[in-house]
Amino acid sequence: MNKCRLLIITLLTTLSLGAPAIAASKQVRWQLAETWPTNLPIFGDTTKNMAKMVKEMSNGRFIIQIHSKNKHKMPFGIFDMVKKGQYQMGHSASYYWKDIDINTMFFTTMPFGMIAPESYAWFYYGGGMQLMEKVFSRHNMLSFPGGNTGNQMGGWFKKEIKSLEDLKGLKMRIPGFAGEILASLGVKTVNIAAGDLYSALKRNTIDALEWVGPSLDFRMGFHKVAPYYYTGWHEPATELHFMVNKRAFRSLPKDLQVILKVAMKAAAYDMYAQSMHESAKNLATMHKDYPNIQIKTFPKEVMQALRAENNRLINEFEKKDPLTKELIDSQRRYLKQIRAWTKISDQAYINSNQ
Amino acid sequence: MNKCRLLIITLLTTLSLGAPAIAASKQVRWQLAETWPTNLPIFGDTTKNMAKMVKEMSNGRFIIQIHSKNKHKMPFGIFDMVKKGQYQMGHSASYYWKDIDINTMFFTTMPFGMIAPESYAWFYYGGGMQLMEKVFSRHNMLSFPGGNTGNQMGGWFKKEIKSLEDLKGLKMRIPGFAGEILASLGVKTVNIAAGDLYSALKRNTIDALEWVGPSLDFRMGFHKVAPYYYTGWHEPATELHFMVNKRAFRSLPKDLQVILKVAMKAAAYDMYAQSMHESAKNLATMHKDYPNIQIKTFPKEVMQALRAENNRLINEFEKKDPLTKELIDSQRRYLKQIRAWTKISDQAYINSNQ
Repeated sequence: MNKCRLLIITLLTTLSLGAPAIAASKQVRWQLAETWPTNLPIFGDTTKNMAKMVKEMSNGRFIIQIHSKNKHKMPFGIFDMVKKGQYQMGHSASYYWKDIDINTMFFTTMPFGMIAPESYAWFYYGGGMQLMEKVFSRHNMLSFPGGNTGNQMGGWFKKEIKSLEDLKGLKMRIPGFAGEILASLGVKTVNIAAGDLYSALKRNTIDALEWVGPSLDFRMGFHKVAPYYYTGWHEPATELHFMVNKRAFRSLPKDLQVILKVAMKAAAYDMYAQSMHESAKNLATMHKDYPNIQIKTFPKEVMQALRAENNRLINEFEKKDPLTKELIDSQRRYLKQIRAWTKISDQAYINSNQ
Repeated sequence: MNKCRLLIITLLTTLSLGAPAIAASKQVRWQLAETWPTNLPIFGDTTKNMAKMVKEMSNGRFIIQIHSKNKHKMPFGIFDMVKKGQYQMGHSASYYWKDIDINTMFFTTMPFGMIAPESYAWFYYGGGMQLMEKVFSRHNMLSFPGGNTGNQMGGWFKKEIKSLEDLKGLKMRIPGFAGEILASLGVKTVNIAAGDLYSALKRNTIDALEWVGPSLDFRMGFHKVAPYYYTGWHEPATELHFMVNKRAFRSLPKDLQVILKVAMKAAAYDMYAQSMHESAKNLATMHKDYPNIQIKTFPKEVMQALRAENNRLINEFEKKDPLTKELIDSQRRYLKQIRAWTKISDQAYINSNQ
């Protein structure tokens, strides 16, 4: 048996050079909960795109299974489920958690805030990622940009808005912070489930509504019942987010951590490109099939009132928490600096090239 | 020995489950040649960022060594070196190869063409990648977006341009296609090595020059000797590119192919965010330290003449090759559709939010 023992030891020593690869080849299976219904275009494509990249880059060692809201029935429970580790990951929008933690609101989009290229510069080179880590580490999670819709439209209106007066008493579906701003100008804001929006608008239960933009509005059919499509002010660059349970992330081998981070990043950027593409395509189809749709921008006095009210609310938030103030200061400073560049680059270019 | 043989067979059978990982763990080493000098900011950061992601995601199995022009001395020989397989990869700008193949010109940027978010939509969702594959497969290569500078400025001028007349006889450093357009309007275009540009502008050897934008112009010091900084028209979204030798790519295991593709994609998008950030930061510093710098846009008659000349040249290119016509048609159609969206989204938003 001595010869045999020697043989086995030699064999094991030789093979041990491959040992880290063997250890790393253990398959990891994660569950991701998303806020969206099954197969929602663009948003749902983003989680699939991310999971596919992870699987292929890891040579099948890391599998992420996606659970839509049709399965988990908790579209707005994802924050808690990922925090507790029921799911290792989530895909949602950070501003949905503002009632749990007001600081989560700043990582999606802010009225009169940054457009998408400005926002990506803030996240990756202007300190945004570090601030997001500060906010989410309080909740035992990591958060990463999860895809941008591009500039969202101001909404579909059945009547033209010619003055501030026209907003008074207007019934509009517009949730969240933007809804608060409009409410203070006299709009009666309501929330209605997605499936009932079209008929509510058609039957004048509401006079107006805000959804996303041509990329996702088109399939809802709003253009068939409301002729005025207003340009945006309240969500200039809506960034979804991936949430990751911190303990789950730390348990991954280093290479799979990087694979996950790079896949999330690439999928997020991809969603921005896809949103641009789908918006442009659907806008062209709408204009062709419904030539009476009019694109409008709110009159100057309305824009000024919206902006004043926005500033007032932001100033109130500042007092809530030193971290809230840090966030507002960072975004305000960054926006001022980068908007000066946007204005002399893309903005000047398009304005001089009509 | 029977018992021993059995033991060894059992051992090998058990370990063979790890065999594909062992096989895949063979290290691959590639050489990348870049057009840029060692440590050029932004451009050089992009190749390093890509190589770092590849190394970490592959757990050290795939190493890409970067060779700057200081080493290979052939900044404009990269097309041939990658084609022949002397280097497995390159990082450069596709329009540098227009004299080898006119069709490579369309993948960097075109005067009066798409801005960066529009261009990424075209590459990834509008058929751009497929067209790039058609062009580069003729040369035994693959090509991928390699990072965007954002909108480039029209250049530094010592005197204000008030009319078309002011362009006549103006000595300007501006290479390539944009130089041809300006030459047809009477500009004397010259090419001068990067290291001599500052003194040429200072000593009035030239009256104007075009470089990149605040992200890279600042370190060149042009703002110290020319007070007029013109907004852009000729390179609205300069996209660098990664070239990969086709045979080298095919020799990679599938997981490393995907790792490479995702790393190139993420690094390219990252460079766009970094360019935005650096441009904004340097512009702010310039305005603070040199308050006399004036940002100008060319007068309408100049813009119209530039555009007319651009259209004339593009119409000539169309006749060269059916693939050239296919490229021009694709970009023209796509730009028309997506610009309509940009105008009612980011453009309307910023114009109504001054």
